[in-house]
Amino acid sequence: MTAYTAPLKDMAFVMNRVLALEAVAALPGYEAAEPALVEQVLAEANRLARDVLAPLNPIGDRQGSRLENGVVRTPDGFRDAYGQFTAGGWNGVPFDPDYGGQGLPWLVQQALAEMWQAANMSFGLCPLLTQGAIELLHAHGTDAQKALYLPKMIEGAWTGTMNLTEPQAGSDVGAVKTRAVPQGDGTYRITGQKIYITYGDHDWTDNVIHMVLARLPDAPEGTKGISLFLVPKYLVNPDGSLGARNDLRAVSLEHKLGINASPTCVMAFGDDAGAVGYLVGPENRGMECMFTMMNNARLAVGTQGLAIAERAYQQALDYAKTRLQSRDIAGSAGPVAIIKHPDVRRMLMSMKSGVEAMRGLSYYAAWALDHAKLNPDEAARQRAQRMIDLLTPIVKAWCTDLGVEIASIGVQIHGGMGFIEETGAAQHYRDARILPIYEGTNGIQANDLVGRKIVRDEGVSMRELIAAMRATLAEMQAQPGDDAEAIAIGLDDGIDALELATDWLLATFPQDRAAALAGAAYYLKLAGTVIGGWMLARGALAALEDLGSPGPGADSDFLEAKLITARFYAEHSLAQSPALLAPMIEGGRTTLALADAQF
Amino acid sequence: MTAYTAPLKDMAFVMNRVLALEAVAALPGYEAAEPALVEQVLAEANRLARDVLAPLNPIGDRQGSRLENGVVRTPDGFRDAYGQFTAGGWNGVPFDPDYGGQGLPWLVQQALAEMWQAANMSFGLCPLLTQGAIELLHAHGTDAQKALYLPKMIEGAWTGTMNLTEPQAGSDVGAVKTRAVPQGDGTYRITGQKIYITYGDHDWTDNVIHMVLARLPDAPEGTKGISLFLVPKYLVNPDGSLGARNDLRAVSLEHKLGINASPTCVMAFGDDAGAVGYLVGPENRGMECMFTMMNNARLAVGTQGLAIAERAYQQALDYAKTRLQSRDIAGSAGPVAIIKHPDVRRMLMSMKSGVEAMRGLSYYAAWALDHAKLNPDEAARQRAQRMIDLLTPIVKAWCTDLGVEIASIGVQIHGGMGFIEETGAAQHYRDARILPIYEGTNGIQANDLVGRKIVRDEGVSMRELIAAMRATLAEMQAQPGDDAEAIAIGLDDGIDALELATDWLLATFPQDRAAALAGAAYYLKLAGTVIGGWMLARGALAALEDLGSPGPGADSDFLEAKLITARFYAEHSLAQSPALLAPMIEGGRTTLALADAQF
Repeated sequence: MTAYTAPLKDMAFVMNRVLALEAVAALPGYEAAEPALVEQVLAEANRLARDVLAPLNPIGDRQGSRLENGVVRTPDGFRDAYGQFTAGGWNGVPFDPDYGGQGLPWLVQQALAEMWQAANMSFGLCPLLTQGAIELLHAHGTDAQKALYLPKMIEGAWTGTMNLTEPQAGSDVGAVKTRAVPQGDGTYRITGQKIYITYGDHDWTDNVIHMVLARLPDAPEGTKGISLFLVPKYLVNPDGSLGARNDLRAVSLEHKLGINASPTCVMAFGDDAGAVGYLVGPENRGMECMFTMMNNARLAVGTQGLAIAERAYQQALDYAKTRLQSRDIAGSAGPVAIIKHPDVRRMLMSMKSGVEAMRGLSYYAAWALDHAKLNPDEAARQRAQRMIDLLTPIVKAWCTDLGVEIASIGVQIHGGMGFIEETGAAQHYRDARILPIYEGTNGIQANDLVGRKIVRDEGVSMRELIAAMRATLAEMQAQPGDDAEAIAIGLDDGIDALELATDWLLATFPQDRAAALAGAAYYLKLAGTVIGGWMLARGALAALEDLGSPGPGADSDFLEAKLITARFYAEHSLAQSPALLAPMIEGGRTTLALADAQF
Repeated sequence: MTAYTAPLKDMAFVMNRVLALEAVAALPGYEAAEPALVEQVLAEANRLARDVLAPLNPIGDRQGSRLENGVVRTPDGFRDAYGQFTAGGWNGVPFDPDYGGQGLPWLVQQALAEMWQAANMSFGLCPLLTQGAIELLHAHGTDAQKALYLPKMIEGAWTGTMNLTEPQAGSDVGAVKTRAVPQGDGTYRITGQKIYITYGDHDWTDNVIHMVLARLPDAPEGTKGISLFLVPKYLVNPDGSLGARNDLRAVSLEHKLGINASPTCVMAFGDDAGAVGYLVGPENRGMECMFTMMNNARLAVGTQGLAIAERAYQQALDYAKTRLQSRDIAGSAGPVAIIKHPDVRRMLMSMKSGVEAMRGLSYYAAWALDHAKLNPDEAARQRAQRMIDLLTPIVKAWCTDLGVEIASIGVQIHGGMGFIEETGAAQHYRDARILPIYEGTNGIQANDLVGRKIVRDEGVSMRELIAAMRATLAEMQAQPGDDAEAIAIGLDDGIDALELATDWLLATFPQDRAAALAGAAYYLKLAGTVIGGWMLARGALAALEDLGSPGPGADSDFLEAKLITARFYAEHSLAQSPALLAPMIEGGRTTLALADAQF
């Protein structure tokens, strides 16, 4: 009933036929990622996701994590599952082989991440954060820090956390008050309280490596006075063995709407003499360093939106194929499976097309990460980096808003059963709701997109993206057939709207920043919808090509479905996207017109 | 933190200034409803809702109802609150004075219902169903049945239920298998199992009156072989005293996503000799009779969508006004309340305008109920009845989809706090999710709207409604000022789209029923959006009039807010509504294009 199987066929299609994994594998350093190996890796990962992680998902929801006598206990089976996860080497896939990683492309890691998060989002959160901490340390740690911590973290023997939020410092990270006092020996003593710390403590590993934002004595106010510290649960001796327990602890767990298996901790640092911490990166530059972790995590959270939507879709589809209710529209003799009913089919197609658009967008971001990292051409590397910077808030916010929407449709397809907790559809609806909130609310993402990624960049990266989308459009327009024509019409309208919106933002922001930001969420939704549609169009082009010259084993049912799904998205999602222009462009002043007391 | 106060000012504005309560009170039989009395009634109801029902809402969520030794126990305080509710006469407001009702207009009951449901939806469900059972019995019961049961039910001493669903018979009520065998003495013995029976048992009253669909021996298949039975928990002696326990019981309660205080029962009828039941209405005409109850309940469930949105809005607004975070856009010295931030303001305006549009629509439906019941002019009565028939699926589905959406925005405005259960925002998100499902899923509503209310009616009632909306539009176009202009533009575009969509449906349905129904949900959303906008425009016209000639005590801040809110809705919601045409008209065939196996 809550089964999950990775959509290996579509994953392979996106990786190989849309994003040219072969070309990624040709980047210097990624030679190991040849498609046949990747296929094996994905099949193996599917077994772990399907057989081990997915069955634990409802158990984790029911049991939740508990804090008992100061110790966090995760639900039955989670610790063992993590053992299988790390034993399989799954924690180290995209990381530097010098520290024990496998050095595989982010594009491959993306497909794996989708599986872990779809199978068990509460489980997947811990490796997600460890991954961000690894990236952070790899980018900003000293050689000694890297040598001491990275191998264990990449192996998964130690996990990582992100300690930003405090009661008065949520979206406004600059308001952090946790203090760090230098001890004169290169170490610091950390004192303060952090909240919403995911996997701040647990029973999976011997050590937890906290990445903590804190303020040095006499540091400037705001984000420019924040430094970053590595604060391990247990101090680590120079030989890598564990030393004394550090002065930090989980003091309580939150009682949440969802992701119950994932312990969300209130962390106290320095109840006694202060927790020992080690500076990472320069003093007062902690936010810049932390952004390495946050950007990685934002892409990963967007992937959670995709993943939970895929999971909800699989469950709703299974129900729709097996639940018999009412005659069909042509007047069948008896009741039919509800998938036969037009409105159920509309809901399923919305889910399916949304999932595939998110898959395209988020895998494309991973593809860009690979090119930004290893493309030998500097201009190509920079272009790819600009693309990631642009896409990060879009992947995070668009995929998570859509993830919530699709999880809700999943409940609806189940009818009354959807509201019964044992069915499992409701868990996705509850779990999904955190995604638009954590790792920077989607409102923060929209502001980031408009302020930093469009205006500060003067629209350069968005224009590059629009040019790439227009090239796909031209290819689509050259295809025969009414499917291609319908896709081209939707994409054309969407790209035009996105270009117009971009021009409007660039013109409006300097003179009326408030009105521009009042429209930021609409702009982000427009961008996500159009870029997702672009990726589906690229898939449709590949499907048309494969249908035109079918190779051995070609799956024409699958390829036709890719085409039809792209067309559905064009007619249903892209076709509505230009309507976002009106509230964005005409509606901003009205959004701001009431006095606070008039609400 | 989870406080609720009825929005008395807006309720009064909609009732008096938009819907002319005075004219409703002038209908023969409604003389008691003069505005000053109604104002007192609403103020008194607010005290019960705010001080008694609302504080129980989170308690009910945490404790839930429990089945212990065959007896349903509701959460602490609920039984006592129901006692206060019935002692105040609140259960009998709209009902026939001949049976102890107060005979007040449905328009007044509508405002009261909004309060009960906003304060505590799980509590409000029981009177909601009793109300439907009363309407059913009043319309279809024998005089003896009415005399025996109605006074107790109107008083609230006995509650009512609706027993339709069985495991194989959800949306397809015609598949009901529960059997009713005549005993030759005018009674029947009922045997079968029903599921999802809201307040199927509880500890509030001495008796529960079940309205049960069952099948007579040799009845025709499908809906035409279903009869309706009144089956009391305790048999009622001719003098009204309680007799023997009937052969029915709650065998289990569902573990649900939300509305935890409301016991959702699996009911077993006839474990022993069969439960004694009494036929209501003619044999094999049970569905027609039950539709009296269902239509009443569908409007009431739509009101629950409005109510939970209002509750979520109040909570989010309170948080947004008190939570300090980040400097404002102009660069304030310190952090400001988050209501100052443009994207938060956008979310609040979306909530506020959506709530007020739903209030307009659902109160308008209640207004039409009053005219259908008591307008002395037969043509006016019939026109009002056509309007109710048309509006019922729209009120039910549009208000509940929007209720879920607004409850979700309410979580979002709280940021991380929204995901913590103690905050209370998450309860609304969970509770709201049942609304698009029960009382006929929103897919069923969309099919009902298209099939029965547009096509079978040949578009007559929708054209009458469109004509009424165009009259408002003309008034708005005659107003000076850019607020009126913006509202008129949005409304004009929306009405045009709705008319075009109606024409398309009428032309398409006869030749391609599947494609028409594939677009039904879009059509319903378009209709709800436009009619809601029409009601806001009527409010804006009244506000303009009052602003132009302010009487004593005129609240110009409130009136300006009505105008601005209508404009926001026009620019943000109405402006996007014509985009629903594309997926509806162009997208239906693609929705149906995949084979089942291609999903």
